[in-house]
Amino acid sequence: MRDLLELRDEIDEIDDQIVKLYEKRMKIAEEVAEYKIHTGKQVFDKKREDEKLAKLTAKAESDFTEHGIYELFEQIMAVSRKRQYQLLTARGLGEDTGFTMVDKLDYANARIVFQGTEGAYSEQAMKTYFGEQCDSYHVDTWKDAMEAIKNKEADYAVLPIENSSAGIVSENYDLMVEYDNYIVGEQIIKIEHALLGLPDAEIKDITSVYSHPQALMQCSEYFDEHKDWEKISVKNTAMAAQKIGYDQKKNQAAIAGSINADIYGLKVLENSIQDNKENSTRFIIVTNRKTYVKNAKKISICFEIPHESGSLYHMLSHFIYNNLNMTRIQSRPVKDKNWEYRFFIDFDGNLEDSAVQNALRGLKAETESFKILGNY
Amino acid sequence: MRDLLELRDEIDEIDDQIVKLYEKRMKIAEEVAEYKIHTGKQVFDKKREDEKLAKLTAKAESDFTEHGIYELFEQIMAVSRKRQYQLLTARGLGEDTGFTMVDKLDYANARIVFQGTEGAYSEQAMKTYFGEQCDSYHVDTWKDAMEAIKNKEADYAVLPIENSSAGIVSENYDLMVEYDNYIVGEQIIKIEHALLGLPDAEIKDITSVYSHPQALMQCSEYFDEHKDWEKISVKNTAMAAQKIGYDQKKNQAAIAGSINADIYGLKVLENSIQDNKENSTRFIIVTNRKTYVKNAKKISICFEIPHESGSLYHMLSHFIYNNLNMTRIQSRPVKDKNWEYRFFIDFDGNLEDSAVQNALRGLKAETESFKILGNY
Repeated sequence: MRDLLELRDEIDEIDDQIVKLYEKRMKIAEEVAEYKIHTGKQVFDKKREDEKLAKLTAKAESDFTEHGIYELFEQIMAVSRKRQYQLLTARGLGEDTGFTMVDKLDYANARIVFQGTEGAYSEQAMKTYFGEQCDSYHVDTWKDAMEAIKNKEADYAVLPIENSSAGIVSENYDLMVEYDNYIVGEQIIKIEHALLGLPDAEIKDITSVYSHPQALMQCSEYFDEHKDWEKISVKNTAMAAQKIGYDQKKNQAAIAGSINADIYGLKVLENSIQDNKENSTRFIIVTNRKTYVKNAKKISICFEIPHESGSLYHMLSHFIYNNLNMTRIQSRPVKDKNWEYRFFIDFDGNLEDSAVQNALRGLKAETESFKILGNY
Repeated sequence: MRDLLELRDEIDEIDDQIVKLYEKRMKIAEEVAEYKIHTGKQVFDKKREDEKLAKLTAKAESDFTEHGIYELFEQIMAVSRKRQYQLLTARGLGEDTGFTMVDKLDYANARIVFQGTEGAYSEQAMKTYFGEQCDSYHVDTWKDAMEAIKNKEADYAVLPIENSSAGIVSENYDLMVEYDNYIVGEQIIKIEHALLGLPDAEIKDITSVYSHPQALMQCSEYFDEHKDWEKISVKNTAMAAQKIGYDQKKNQAAIAGSINADIYGLKVLENSIQDNKENSTRFIIVTNRKTYVKNAKKISICFEIPHESGSLYHMLSHFIYNNLNMTRIQSRPVKDKNWEYRFFIDFDGNLEDSAVQNALRGLKAETESFKILGNY
């Protein structure tokens, strides 16, 4: 048996040779790019790549190396393709994403819509983002808010997208696919739920609790102590508080921010009843225009992928080879296609970056129903 | 400018050389495995790999190829490591997953627990899986079902895990992490929701609808036509039907399977009111033992990963290099860690397969809080 050091020396020598060949191959890829720029030929030639992979794997000495060689050259060809995209971008033949860059978004005369009513967490997120004095109005549903910006009744909508303990607000993920609206900003706010009742009510009087289903979920440990309470879903936490004030029934309580006690003439029966004391919600600021600011640094996209082994993995390679930091991945069922999924990915970058353009060009070519949700 | 054919010939020549070097390297990796088997040395030597990557990238001629070389050798070393794991497994030094293989699970004398009450979809899934005559009882919550099998009051629990239109049942994902219980089977059943009311009620009488939050979500288009109805969340669809029968109020309705009309003396006011007419739910069969059947062909795992660029991508490489078909990926927030995620992955395979053992060994070494949820 040979010694480990001896074996490692031999490996090092092989690796040096591979590095030299790799450098040489990338230089030729640049020449190929020049040729393609000159002739207007497409960078991605799936047929040629498939033929190459078939030829190379035929040379493998075992099933194990056959698979390894396949993966190795898929990677090498993907990187080579990306180098070609880079050169195209440098020549001004970059990807047109359809988005317009602006120095700054005009929030001064903006009209903003949020879902719920006065006292809603969405209103709080809106005021934190746009300022206390912003021109706003509210609608009943998230879909109504999406419709409002689609129909230009409002410039921006504020929608919750994810809670740090309950997870994604799936309906708003789905609405971002359904509507041609785009994200231009985000705002995280801390969520502290209180149990609110009538001024003369005590906890022992309560039999029915009204709130948004996400808020009810976020207080599940508290409900474990009150298993007999009826939980009623309403569209918004503030609407729940409003209802208690309106109905004037001592057995009813709402779960909402404590700010609603003052607004609707209620009493805080118990404060901070959510399971996670650091509970936060991320809201997105949505508009109807394909626009982004110069210093935007996060991109959200979504796509469906063909139902093949490894296809998700290959999609992710576009982020890695372009050195893009993926910060979030979510999947949702595709409507009317049982057990098929749509992926939502957030990553760091600006639509002006050539690395971003390269990745997006590849993703667009290799996925279905690709959409850039926004750069913010 | 050189011609495309000429450039491609040159690339082909380089690729042939890379293939030869790759084969040679894998042969040496096998010798390294022999050495490691002999000396009991660990396969994964992160320090050595990091040093190699630093040395090789230092030879790069540009930033672009530096990154490419880094990725290329990460891949080559990962495959090499996997070849070593394969040889260890072949020598009987395979991974002990802690799971016991059995020819068949004994369902004949099994006691089964489900959440809800008579008429629940969980009961329907249970009867489809275990047979009409199985020995069963029901509990109030999913957590209670998990407790029941933990405390050996029942042998198996039946829990819904995912709906084809509403997505995952997140609470049950979280419970699978919280409890040392394991999946041994699954059952998909078609879900057809009906609106059930008292025998003398008409749709125009209804003001309050009781059901499980997931069922309410699955009928959102139907509710868009009845915006004034109050939606009340209860633990289970069958409990909702039971309540309507018990309360005897004409303004109340339940959303549940139509089978509940007979059980609780109700009338079907409207059938098949879910948005997706092909609506299905996947249930898991859970037990307290780490066991799997010989012909099990799907594995579910979960893990947290360090918050680094590309770490998810590297985790996925374990599936690809071992040729394992990943069928599902989900992420959930990690409890008490804001904006950190736990991943749930399903893939095809049996814990006896060496490819599976290789992948699991790598994943266990490179992730946090790794758990095999079951093989079924």
